[in-house]
Amino acid sequence: MLNFATQTARILMKLREPSLLLDESKCRKNIATLVSKAKQHQLDFQPHFKTHQSNLVGEWYREEGIRAITVSSLQMAQYFAEDGWEEITVAFPINVLLLDIIKELSKRVQLNIYVNSLDAARYLESKLQQEVGVFTELDTGYHRSGIPYQNQEEIAALLDFFHKSSILRFQGFYTHAGHTYHVQGKEAVSRVHRETVDRLCEVKARFSDDIKIAIGDTPACSLADDFSGVDIIRPGNFVFYDLVQQQIGVCSYDDIAVCVACPVVEKRPERNEVIIHGGAVHFSKDVLEDPAGKIFGKVVSLHDQGWNAPTTASYLASVSQEHGLVKLNSQQIEQIGIGDWLGILPVHSCLTANLMRSYVSLSGQRIDTMHTSNYSYF
Amino acid sequence: MLNFATQTARILMKLREPSLLLDESKCRKNIATLVSKAKQHQLDFQPHFKTHQSNLVGEWYREEGIRAITVSSLQMAQYFAEDGWEEITVAFPINVLLLDIIKELSKRVQLNIYVNSLDAARYLESKLQQEVGVFTELDTGYHRSGIPYQNQEEIAALLDFFHKSSILRFQGFYTHAGHTYHVQGKEAVSRVHRETVDRLCEVKARFSDDIKIAIGDTPACSLADDFSGVDIIRPGNFVFYDLVQQQIGVCSYDDIAVCVACPVVEKRPERNEVIIHGGAVHFSKDVLEDPAGKIFGKVVSLHDQGWNAPTTASYLASVSQEHGLVKLNSQQIEQIGIGDWLGILPVHSCLTANLMRSYVSLSGQRIDTMHTSNYSYF
Repeated sequence: MLNFATQTARILMKLREPSLLLDESKCRKNIATLVSKAKQHQLDFQPHFKTHQSNLVGEWYREEGIRAITVSSLQMAQYFAEDGWEEITVAFPINVLLLDIIKELSKRVQLNIYVNSLDAARYLESKLQQEVGVFTELDTGYHRSGIPYQNQEEIAALLDFFHKSSILRFQGFYTHAGHTYHVQGKEAVSRVHRETVDRLCEVKARFSDDIKIAIGDTPACSLADDFSGVDIIRPGNFVFYDLVQQQIGVCSYDDIAVCVACPVVEKRPERNEVIIHGGAVHFSKDVLEDPAGKIFGKVVSLHDQGWNAPTTASYLASVSQEHGLVKLNSQQIEQIGIGDWLGILPVHSCLTANLMRSYVSLSGQRIDTMHTSNYSYF
Repeated sequence: MLNFATQTARILMKLREPSLLLDESKCRKNIATLVSKAKQHQLDFQPHFKTHQSNLVGEWYREEGIRAITVSSLQMAQYFAEDGWEEITVAFPINVLLLDIIKELSKRVQLNIYVNSLDAARYLESKLQQEVGVFTELDTGYHRSGIPYQNQEEIAALLDFFHKSSILRFQGFYTHAGHTYHVQGKEAVSRVHRETVDRLCEVKARFSDDIKIAIGDTPACSLADDFSGVDIIRPGNFVFYDLVQQQIGVCSYDDIAVCVACPVVEKRPERNEVIIHGGAVHFSKDVLEDPAGKIFGKVVSLHDQGWNAPTTASYLASVSQEHGLVKLNSQQIEQIGIGDWLGILPVHSCLTANLMRSYVSLSGQRIDTMHTSNYSYF
């Protein structure tokens, strides 16, 4: 108990509470890999910043030559505009109630929004003075947002409206093929991806060659080799990856760039369990079906340079608001004590990062996000 | 579309984004009901404030005569201490790394902490100068934190340590009977509750009559009639209730005091669905098995005085980071448009409140929490 110096990493000596550790080198490697892949396939890479929500991580993209980015809300667009990003796409069906932010942003950055209906288009056309870029989402099989790609008349009517508009400058079609998350492995992901892109191209063929095709799911952007027909990619999660992506076969454990360090607060050797401070308010309740059962995270050992890949069947077995119940093996149980730290790889890094609100680098520096910056976006 | 004045409530005219509406009258009624029940059963009612995390809601308790409260972290204790609360119990196995906050708080309030092991007890004894109240958690069947109630020797050794300590002032046993959430209805909840309390009393009988018995689960505190053997109750969720409690039979829909107002951003009449801005970053991913399938919330109609109980099978069918996919019936689909609002009752109000970070009253006032107050606790 409380013998960090020998048992765990130096960085942990500075921590007292659940903290989201960010391994900069893994993160930069994930960024560089996709930047290079995008170049190779002549894709315009406009990374989604909803996963990290941080100016500093944005800086690492800038150093790789990224100039246009994607966000999930107008407030997030404001945060990154403030940091000098000049081309920002808000990849969410536009909330027309936030008209004043759309107006304000379209004056200072090259703003693209998602307009998926004539209702929204007509309303914006009647209220905006400044030109704004527009993408329309098509539903190619995931069945969340977007016009079903088969709805020819609906799509034609909307494009006709954009064509006549001097405000809504149509850029292209976007699809989020979230159903790549429902399959496993490169071949299956690539099949869903190809079908998705073919459907977008089929719609495009009926209109104009100028229409851009944009996609956004991390599995396809990471695994696929064939991007013919695609102009823009907007993945976000790959920047950190997580256990979901590892299970699909998109990344290895070693690619996962974030890890929650949690203090052990109780030990129950009779059940091979410890209680950590680390619950649903830290990890979210995203859950993974694993050979071990339902898991909320996997245990890794922390060291001075970060953490190792999980090698044992140790995992976060349940979470309540603040408590996490961790299953360990007998050897681990013997070695760990109250006040020691466990590293937990998250099931879904986007939600974990959103809950944790800031990061700690491996040198112990706090890295802020839009939620912890001085400027308030809410 | 955008015809609030006729379709929805006045308060919504002020909103532009997903907002957690708080119905003060329902909330005050939930508080008053439990205050009165506690008086009737001569229980010391020390409500858990982790659900609301707000000074203003705390004020409503004060007006009902509450003087001692429960929280889930030392930071939350600091926030409420700042607001004048003088007796605060941190109902979480103590994180010994936060020694400086324990020291600071024990000087200004009557602080109680949970110490469940000799390791933690010894460490605190060696580091603290100021007396602090101590509860020990016993595990009576939920198998999360706490010493298994059967571990006689472990309990005896800990109590012996407290007996000799001039710092750790032992107060009593606590248990969280989280397994009342796994059953349905008053009879089944009362059965689990009785078994739980009997086990605590069995342990107490081996030591001293002075030992207090404290429990905390909302189902038992709300439904049980027999509290013999219990001294203190520390429920939290009942202040808002939610769909989990409604499904167990602990509350009615009308008792649920919070509701997330979400703007409609897309309409897919061909599937009787709308997309709302309202996803996992607003609701969490707590899910309920319902006759309709897995649900993440239920749709209610909003009006000037709040919202009605859900009457139809309309529900939040899935959530991703920001998107919510809502199933409506044909009549609702016809009436609703982009820019309109839907009210969604949350599955788990504690996690929803923690994510939303502040409330909006039915008169349109923002109600802050520890996350949005000026004083930073992180």
